[in-house]
Amino acid sequence: MNEDLMKTMLAAYGAATLNGIKDFIPDKEPRTYLYDLVAEYPERGGKGFRPGLCIAACKAFGGVQSDAMNSAVCLELLHNAFLVHDDVEDESLIRRNRPTLHEANNRAIAINVGDAMQVLAMYPLHMNRDRLGDRVASAIYLEVRHLAIESAEGQAIELGWRRDNVCDLRETDYLHMILKKTCWYTCIHPLRIGAIIGTRGRVNPEIFDRFGYFMGTAFQIQDDVLNLIAEQDAYGKEICGDIIEGKRTLMLIHLLQHGSAEEHSFVKNFLSLPINKRSLDDARAILALMNTYGSIAHAKKTAQYLAGGALKEFYSIFARLPAGDDKTLIENIVLYMINRTY
Amino acid sequence: MNEDLMKTMLAAYGAATLNGIKDFIPDKEPRTYLYDLVAEYPERGGKGFRPGLCIAACKAFGGVQSDAMNSAVCLELLHNAFLVHDDVEDESLIRRNRPTLHEANNRAIAINVGDAMQVLAMYPLHMNRDRLGDRVASAIYLEVRHLAIESAEGQAIELGWRRDNVCDLRETDYLHMILKKTCWYTCIHPLRIGAIIGTRGRVNPEIFDRFGYFMGTAFQIQDDVLNLIAEQDAYGKEICGDIIEGKRTLMLIHLLQHGSAEEHSFVKNFLSLPINKRSLDDARAILALMNTYGSIAHAKKTAQYLAGGALKEFYSIFARLPAGDDKTLIENIVLYMINRTY
Repeated sequence: MNEDLMKTMLAAYGAATLNGIKDFIPDKEPRTYLYDLVAEYPERGGKGFRPGLCIAACKAFGGVQSDAMNSAVCLELLHNAFLVHDDVEDESLIRRNRPTLHEANNRAIAINVGDAMQVLAMYPLHMNRDRLGDRVASAIYLEVRHLAIESAEGQAIELGWRRDNVCDLRETDYLHMILKKTCWYTCIHPLRIGAIIGTRGRVNPEIFDRFGYFMGTAFQIQDDVLNLIAEQDAYGKEICGDIIEGKRTLMLIHLLQHGSAEEHSFVKNFLSLPINKRSLDDARAILALMNTYGSIAHAKKTAQYLAGGALKEFYSIFARLPAGDDKTLIENIVLYMINRTY
Repeated sequence: MNEDLMKTMLAAYGAATLNGIKDFIPDKEPRTYLYDLVAEYPERGGKGFRPGLCIAACKAFGGVQSDAMNSAVCLELLHNAFLVHDDVEDESLIRRNRPTLHEANNRAIAINVGDAMQVLAMYPLHMNRDRLGDRVASAIYLEVRHLAIESAEGQAIELGWRRDNVCDLRETDYLHMILKKTCWYTCIHPLRIGAIIGTRGRVNPEIFDRFGYFMGTAFQIQDDVLNLIAEQDAYGKEICGDIIEGKRTLMLIHLLQHGSAEEHSFVKNFLSLPINKRSLDDARAILALMNTYGSIAHAKKTAQYLAGGALKEFYSIFARLPAGDDKTLIENIVLYMINRTY
């Protein structure tokens, strides 16, 4: 794999998208409590997978970057809007090495900023009408509508599990939830939208569904593993943050399935406490149990299988397309997902 | 005025809108933590001013009700989405005589439900393309986009005042905030959108801006007055709720301007406490001060002046249109606003 090419291209597409986002943020009051904060999360940077996949798919399928920019801006701004609200919902403290928006301001202001970001995110799709015509613009709007609804459904499922302290989950429950909460908006729709733009609607977007599902689940599981094992400074989230938040990760589900009855109760009792009453010591004990039962190794292995499935799908979808940097970029994103498990 | 006609017509338009909303809520899982809750606030009922004004303006300007239904559904669903998030932001306990969504469930679930409602609310505007054509549908989308942004800006201003405990506000600050937070989405845009549909885009929508501003500010001030003086059962919100939430109402601003330095400090100190530390006794003392200084009487009078301005605008805009129930409905809504101050 060519990690340098991937990073360079994702950085370039990410920078172009960030510039685009800034163009869509009104340059007026109220700044302190709204528009300055709208730009905060996008400016903190991220991997840029969503705009990257969208732009790369557009170009790999014969389009030009400028035709994909409105949609890339929409995807990235919507992603950041989700993050702002997710952080409030999860009571997260840190996002990308800095205090979450609601910690740095307050909860009410953060919720309102997220709402404004959702509204602002939809406008570039309206601009698509002039550039791509009403038919293609409408198709893209329906893609974005679907991803936003799937994400809300996935989030509702996860929040329901936490609220009712559901602890008898199976791996299929997890994968179903992640398909909804992560895969559609992170992988499937960015690829679909890019290809729709590149072909001016002459592609069957469903060819990306399995690919994006494998890729998105592999990505999410690895993300959760890294959150668990990485130090705060390296990763930008608090230590054991996911365990304290009660996030139903594959590791947690594996531990709940394989731990003793006593350990199962210990975890369940821990999760029944309000978040601010869950101690770091207990969270560390749960992390130790995950190691004991091989939950983390199991999750890593599952992510690799899924990434392997994604690679197979990639070759079947992209084999017919000519070689090029954007095709290579997408391949490298999949390879990166396999390699970063180590 | 004919209050019966107004109530009958608003109820009929409201019922049609509620049916329309239900058609746009997916009939699938997750129900308990998402789709059942999406319907909750709309089903609790409300005055139905927004769909009412939209449908009535459409018909008064020569259109038919069915052409306005998609837009009425969007306006009402968006309004309820705002309420769900506003209630979280304001830490409100009661909405329409029942616990707020976040009190009955939890905060995280309520935020996510509000997000889903915003997404669902936009889809009827897409359906407008088939019925009204791309040109008119795009015009309506831009109206809705503007109202959503203005509302977020108005909300940001008010939340900023609360966060920084701003107590040196003038009446113009208040009116500017209410224009943004309430008038655009409650009055101006429902009227504009209705007339755009009725005339298929052949109206200058700006003719409604002053009318909707007068109407919306009169409506909001009276709403705040009623919240303050009405009993819980009659009005459906908690007693002194606005005072405890720290809402910058015209009455509060008037009291802060006219009370003694000591009283000003008392109010400011009260507002500097976290919401759950503000006592009902102190809130009642502030209510008593508002009576002492005539703050409530002043607000009632201001609302009446504004409603009078709205009535003048109404006659100037609607004089040229033929008589009819829908024209009468809009007139009666304005008259109702004047009368309900007593």
